[in-house]
Amino acid sequence: MPTPRRAAVHRVPMRHPGDTAAIEALFDSGALDPAAVVAILGKTEGNGCVNDFTRAYAVQALSHMLARRLGTTAEAIRAGIALVMSGGTEGGLSPHFLVLAVTAGEAANPSGALAIGIAFTPDFAPEEIGRMAQVDATADAVRRAMAEAGISDPAGVHYVQVKCPLLTNDSMAQARARGAAVATEDTYASMGLSRGASALGVALALGEVARVEAGGIGRDWSKFSGRASASAGVELERNEVIVLGNSMAWAGDLRIAHAVMDDAIDLPAVRRAVAAVGMPLEEGQVPAAMADCLVAVLAKAEPSSSGRIRGQRHIMWDDSDINATRHARALVGGVIAGVVGRTDIFVSGGAEHQGPDGGGPVAVIARPARV
Amino acid sequence: MPTPRRAAVHRVPMRHPGDTAAIEALFDSGALDPAAVVAILGKTEGNGCVNDFTRAYAVQALSHMLARRLGTTAEAIRAGIALVMSGGTEGGLSPHFLVLAVTAGEAANPSGALAIGIAFTPDFAPEEIGRMAQVDATADAVRRAMAEAGISDPAGVHYVQVKCPLLTNDSMAQARARGAAVATEDTYASMGLSRGASALGVALALGEVARVEAGGIGRDWSKFSGRASASAGVELERNEVIVLGNSMAWAGDLRIAHAVMDDAIDLPAVRRAVAAVGMPLEEGQVPAAMADCLVAVLAKAEPSSSGRIRGQRHIMWDDSDINATRHARALVGGVIAGVVGRTDIFVSGGAEHQGPDGGGPVAVIARPARV
Amino acid sequence: MPTPRRAAVHRVPMRHPGDTAAIEALFDSGALDPAAVVAILGKTEGNGCVNDFTRAYAVQALSHMLARRLGTTAEAIRAGIALVMSGGTEGGLSPHFLVLAVTAGEAANPSGALAIGIAFTPDFAPEEIGRMAQVDATADAVRRAMAEAGISDPAGVHYVQVKCPLLTNDSMAQARARGAAVATEDTYASMGLSRGASALGVALALGEVARVEAGGIGRDWSKFSGRASASAGVELERNEVIVLGNSMAWAGDLRIAHAVMDDAIDLPAVRRAVAAVGMPLEEGQVPAAMADCLVAVLAKAEPSSSGRIRGQRHIMWDDSDINATRHARALVGGVIAGVVGRTDIFVSGGAEHQGPDGGGPVAVIARPARV
Amino acid sequence: MPTPRRAAVHRVPMRHPGDTAAIEALFDSGALDPAAVVAILGKTEGNGCVNDFTRAYAVQALSHMLARRLGTTAEAIRAGIALVMSGGTEGGLSPHFLVLAVTAGEAANPSGALAIGIAFTPDFAPEEIGRMAQVDATADAVRRAMAEAGISDPAGVHYVQVKCPLLTNDSMAQARARGAAVATEDTYASMGLSRGASALGVALALGEVARVEAGGIGRDWSKFSGRASASAGVELERNEVIVLGNSMAWAGDLRIAHAVMDDAIDLPAVRRAVAAVGMPLEEGQVPAAMADCLVAVLAKAEPSSSGRIRGQRHIMWDDSDINATRHARALVGGVIAGVVGRTDIFVSGGAEHQGPDGGGPVAVIARPARV
Repeated sequence: MPTPRRAAVHRVPMRHPGDTAAIEALFDSGALDPAAVVAILGKTEGNGCVNDFTRAYAVQALSHMLARRLGTTAEAIRAGIALVMSGGTEGGLSPHFLVLAVTAGEAANPSGALAIGIAFTPDFAPEEIGRMAQVDATADAVRRAMAEAGISDPAGVHYVQVKCPLLTNDSMAQARARGAAVATEDTYASMGLSRGASALGVALALGEVARVEAGGIGRDWSKFSGRASASAGVELERNEVIVLGNSMAWAGDLRIAHAVMDDAIDLPAVRRAVAAVGMPLEEGQVPAAMADCLVAVLAKAEPSSSGRIRGQRHIMWDDSDINATRHARALVGGVIAGVVGRTDIFVSGGAEHQGPDGGGPVAVIARPARV
Repeated sequence: MPTPRRAAVHRVPMRHPGDTAAIEALFDSGALDPAAVVAILGKTEGNGCVNDFTRAYAVQALSHMLARRLGTTAEAIRAGIALVMSGGTEGGLSPHFLVLAVTAGEAANPSGALAIGIAFTPDFAPEEIGRMAQVDATADAVRRAMAEAGISDPAGVHYVQVKCPLLTNDSMAQARARGAAVATEDTYASMGLSRGASALGVALALGEVARVEAGGIGRDWSKFSGRASASAGVELERNEVIVLGNSMAWAGDLRIAHAVMDDAIDLPAVRRAVAAVGMPLEEGQVPAAMADCLVAVLAKAEPSSSGRIRGQRHIMWDDSDINATRHARALVGGVIAGVVGRTDIFVSGGAEHQGPDGGGPVAVIARPARV
Repeated sequence: MPTPRRAAVHRVPMRHPGDTAAIEALFDSGALDPAAVVAILGKTEGNGCVNDFTRAYAVQALSHMLARRLGTTAEAIRAGIALVMSGGTEGGLSPHFLVLAVTAGEAANPSGALAIGIAFTPDFAPEEIGRMAQVDATADAVRRAMAEAGISDPAGVHYVQVKCPLLTNDSMAQARARGAAVATEDTYASMGLSRGASALGVALALGEVARVEAGGIGRDWSKFSGRASASAGVELERNEVIVLGNSMAWAGDLRIAHAVMDDAIDLPAVRRAVAAVGMPLEEGQVPAAMADCLVAVLAKAEPSSSGRIRGQRHIMWDDSDINATRHARALVGGVIAGVVGRTDIFVSGGAEHQGPDGGGPVAVIARPARV
Repeated sequence: MPTPRRAAVHRVPMRHPGDTAAIEALFDSGALDPAAVVAILGKTEGNGCVNDFTRAYAVQALSHMLARRLGTTAEAIRAGIALVMSGGTEGGLSPHFLVLAVTAGEAANPSGALAIGIAFTPDFAPEEIGRMAQVDATADAVRRAMAEAGISDPAGVHYVQVKCPLLTNDSMAQARARGAAVATEDTYASMGLSRGASALGVALALGEVARVEAGGIGRDWSKFSGRASASAGVELERNEVIVLGNSMAWAGDLRIAHAVMDDAIDLPAVRRAVAAVGMPLEEGQVPAAMADCLVAVLAKAEPSSSGRIRGQRHIMWDDSDINATRHARALVGGVIAGVVGRTDIFVSGGAEHQGPDGGGPVAVIARPARV
C-alpha cells in the first residue's frame, strides 16, 4: 500500500511584498521542508490593477529565496512551483502568504482530508485566449489535477485556483502577423476574458455547467463556477491549475469547504462555509480561541454590474479615484472578516464567471476546532 | 396634558450629492411636512477628507430646496435645521439622506419611543477649539438637548451627533492678532481635536467618563464616548448637538439602541445593537423581509493606531493612494452590512474619543419587526 | 451707425467650487454689470472624471448667485448664460473662473478686437449624439455664432468652446423604447463621442476639414479642429457653442490667438500663440510685469494613444490610481505655465478630434503689453 | 602620469520596475562593462510615497542581475554600487535608469569633463538622524567625494545625490532602550528630516551656507543647497554621497551644469542650466536633432508651503486623493520637458533644504551638440 500524501497549509504574514522572512523562518525551524512546497498564494498590498508591481516583486523575491534554499535557479522555481499573487488588501485585509506543501502522511484520514492537485495546460496561442480553446484546455487540466489529487467526484472539489495568461501588445502583433484574430485588442479586457474562459473551464470540468457557448464568454453571467478563482498574469502563456478538495486517500486533519455568495453582503453564505468545516460561531463570529484553526479563507469579490446591492446604489463603478475592484475587495473582506474574526483573508478581484454577478465563491480550510 | 411629540426618521437615496428629489417626493406625497424637519444627516459620495466638496454641495442643495419649500432663505434654513453631511461611501456604502422630523403624536408609548433633542453651544473663540472650553460647552449642550428630548437618565441616550467647527488659517490669524494661542497650527489636525473634545464633552455629560484632563484630549484614547459621533466642518463656529434616545414621553414605535465595537471587525457588537431593538437574525443576517424595519444604522469607523487588527497588519496608514479613513469606512461598512443586510448605512470616519482605538459606536433605529 | 460691442474677460480665483465671492466683488465694485455676463468658464478642483461633482456644485452656486443679482430664477440663469465648468486642477493649475461679458463699446478697434458669439443647436435625440446629426448641427451653430460675432472669415476664429450632452441610462432606454439605436451603450464612451462629433462640427464650419465621414467619429484622429474645446455634461440636451475670435466691428483692446500643440510638450506652439497676441518673452517666459495682460489661456490636454511622447513611454494609461486625463492636465499645465508664468490656466481634458492625438489647441487672450 | 578617468552616463528605458533588459543590452553589446558601473539612478513608476514598492523591486532586480553578471552576490552589489531609486513618474515623466560608469580615459579634457566621486558616511545611530551629526558627517563625505573626483573648487560641483536612512519603529525602540532621544517619533517625518539634514550637509561642504543651526533643520527654509538631491530609504543606515561635477583631470566630452528654480514654474532657470552645457534652443526648446545630446536631466520638485505659486492658489496640499509630491513632480516635469523636449527626466520629490521653498535644483549633463 502506498504511503498516503498529506497536504499542509502555512499562513504567514509579510511586512512588505518582498518580505519572505516568515517563510524562511518556517524552513529554519523545521516546520516546513522547502522541497515539499508545491504552491504559494500571496495577497500583496498593491492596487490589484494594471500597475500593481507588488505581485511581480513578490514572485521575484520568492523565486530567488526558494532557488537559494533548493540549490536551483529562480527560473526553475517559477517553472515548477505555482506562485499566485493577488494584489489588493483594501479595507482591513492583511498581506499574507499561503504556502501549500505536500509530504508523506502516516495514514489516510478515513473521513477525508485536504488534497491538492496541480496541472498545467499547454501554452496558448494568442488567438486561443478568452476563447473555447482555453475553456476546454482548462477543463482538461482540472480533470488531470483532480486525478492527481485522487478526487474522482467533482463534489469533492471545493476550490480551483487558476493562473492564466493575457494578451499583450507583443502577442497580439505576433498573432496579426500570422493572420490570426484575437478575442480583443484591449490588453486590460483580455485579462477578464482569460479569467472568464478559465472559470468556465472549471465549471465544465466540475459539472457546474453542462456546456459553454463561445458567445457566452464574458457575456452570459448566468453561467459560472462556484469554486473557481482565476487571476491573469503577464508572466505565463499557459493555465496553471491548483485543485483543492477533500479526499479519503490523503492524510492529515485539514478540511476544505465552500459556499457561493449571491451578492457582496451574503454573510449567510460565509457562515455556511465556516459551518461546513466544523467551526462553531459565538455571537456570530469564530471564537478568538479558534480563529487560528481556520488556516485559510479564499474568496472572490466583484462589484455588481447593475450598480446596486439589494436595490441600493453603490458607487464603485463611478469612482474615478479608486478602482471598482478595490472597493469590492474592501467590502467583501469586511463581510467575511466579521464572521471569521480575522483579516488575513485571500480576497481576490476580477470574478468573471466566478460566482454570480456581484457575488463569488468563498472557501475555507480548517483544522479541527477543539472546543 | 400636553400632546406628546413623535419622532420620524425617513431614509431616502440620493442619485448624486445635489439630488434632493427623494426628499421632495416625501413632501409631495404628504408623507412628510417640510416644517417638521429638524435635522438631515447625509452620507455623500466624496472622499470624506479635505477636498470633499460633496458635503457642501449637498448642504447648498438642501438649503435652497428647503428655503423654497418653507418660503424662507437658504441662510435661515442653515441656521435653523442641523444639516450634517458625512463624506465617503467606500466599499458598498450607499449614498443616502436620513431626515429627522418631529410632529405631534397621539399618545405616548409607555415602553418608550425614539426621542430627539437638539441644542447648540455658543460660538467658540479659535483658542477654545480642541480644549476644555469646548469639552465643557458640549457637555452642557448635551444636557440641554437631553432635557429638550425629555430624557433624564443618560442610559436613555443612544447616539449623539455633534457637528463642530475647525481652525482655519483666518481664525488662527485672528487669534494670533489678539495674542491668543490655539491648540494646533495645523488645520487638518484641528478637525481631530475638535471632534475629540466634542466627544469627550458627550462622554462627560453621559457619565461615560468622570472627568476629562486637558492634556488627554487627542492623546489619552482610553477615555471615550460609546455614543458620540462628531464631524467637523468649516461652516460653523459653534457645536450643534443632536441627541437621540428613547423616552416614555414620546409617541410612536421607533426605538434606538447602540453598542460599542471594540475593533473594526467586532461583528458581535453589531448583533447586540440589532438585538437590542428587537430585530431577529436569520443565518446571522436581518431577514430581507424585515430589512426595511431598520430605519437607520449609524456608526463610526477608524483605523487602529497600532497598524494591526487582532494582531494582523493592516495597510491603511501606509497607503499613499487611498486615505486611511476611506479604508476604514469600507471595512466597517462591510462588517455591518453583513449583519443588517443592507448598505445604506451612515458610517462616518474620524472617531477620536468616539469608541476605543480602532473601534467605535454603532447605533440602530428600528420600527417593530412583525415576524 | 450702431454702437459697437465690446467683449470683456474677467479672470477671478475661487477658494472652493462654491465660492463666487470674487465675481460678486466685481459686481459690487462696478467693474462688471451682472446683466452683461454672457458666459462663465470655470476650472474647478475635482477629478475631472465621472464622479467630479465640483462642476455641478459650481454651476449651482453660480446660478443661485446670478439669479439673486438679476432678480430671476436659477433655472432661467442656466438657460440663458453658458456656464461651462471643467474639472481638474492637477499639478500647479489654479482654480479660477473666466467671466465673459459683452457691453456697448465706444468705437470699433480698426485693428480688430475680441468678439464673442453664442449659439445653440436644437435638442438632440439620443440616437443623434456622437453621430453626423450632431456634427452637422454643431457646424451650423458655429456658423450662426460667427455671424452673431460679426466674424465672416473662419481665420478670425481662434477658440470655440462647445458644451455638449451625453447618453444616460435613461435617455438610452427612451431611445430603445422607440426602436432607435444609439451610438454606444456605454455612458462614459458617449462623452467622448459627443465631444468628438462636436469638435468635428467645429472643424467643418471652420474649413479645417472638408468633410466628415460617419465612420471616422471617434476613430480617425487625423481629422481634428485646432480651435475646438468640447466638454460633455449631463445637464443639457443640446450643444451650446461659444465662438471667440477677433473682429474689426468690436471695440476694446483685447485680442485672441491660438496655436496647435503637436504633442503634450510642444512648447514652441505655446510660444507662437503668445507671440501672436503681441506678448514678449524674457528668458523664455512672459515677464512678471506683463503676466496680468494675459487675461486667459485655454488649452486641451490628452495622453497620446500610443503610450509614448517622442518615443519615450508615459505611464498615464497604465496608472490605476490616477486617471490618465489627470496626468495629462498636470503635464500640459506645466508646459504652458512655464511659458506664461502663471498657473490660472484653463486646461481641459478629453480632446477627441480637438488637436492631433496627444496634442491639442492652445488659445491666448491678452490686452496690449506696454513695455 | 596616471591615466585619467572617464565618466559615462547611459540613459535607458525600463518597461517596468523589474526590467533591467536595456542595461543588459548595453553589457551584451560591449557598450558598457558591468565592472565599470559605480551607480545607478532610477526613476520608477510607483507613487513615490510610503507604499511605493517599485523602488525596492528595481533594486532587487538590479542587484540580482549585476550579481549574476559580476559573479558575486546581490548583497555585495548593494554594498558596493549606489542604487538610488526615486519613485513617481507623474504627468509625462518616463521611467528610466541612469547608469553611471567610470573607465580609463585616453587624455584629460583641458576644458573639463564630467567627474564622479562617491563617498559614504559611517552608519548613524538613530538619534543622529535629522540632527547636526548627520549634517556634519554628510559635509565630510561630500568633501571626500570631491577629493576622489578631483574637484577642489566647490564651484566645480553641480549635483550631489545623497541616499540617506530614516527612522523605523525598530530603530526608535532600540534608541529608547539606550535612553537616547530621536529627532521625531514619526517615521514619515524622519524621512524629511534626514533629507533636510543631508542637504544642509551638502550646503555646508559647498559653502552655500556658512553654518547650520541645529534648530533650523526642517524649519529654516532660507538655508538650502542649490545642488543637493536627497532621498531617504529604509535599506541603509549611512549616507551614500554621489558628487557630480566638472574636472580638468577627467577625460571625455560630457559636461554638467545646474541652476536653481526659484519656484515650480521657473522656466528661465531651466534654460540657464541648458545654456550652461552649451545646448542651443530653437523656438525655446532643445532641437529634436540634439535632444539625445542631453544625456541626463535631474531636478527636485516640491509644492510651495504657502499653497500658492506666484500668488495663485494650488491645490496640491488639499488633495486627499493624490499626494502633494505627485502633483509637484508632474508640474515640474512639464516645465522642464517643455524646454528639453524629452520626458525621461529624473524629477524627484521631497526637497527639504534642496533649493528654496517651492523650487529646487535642476542639473543637466550633456555631450557637445554639433549643430
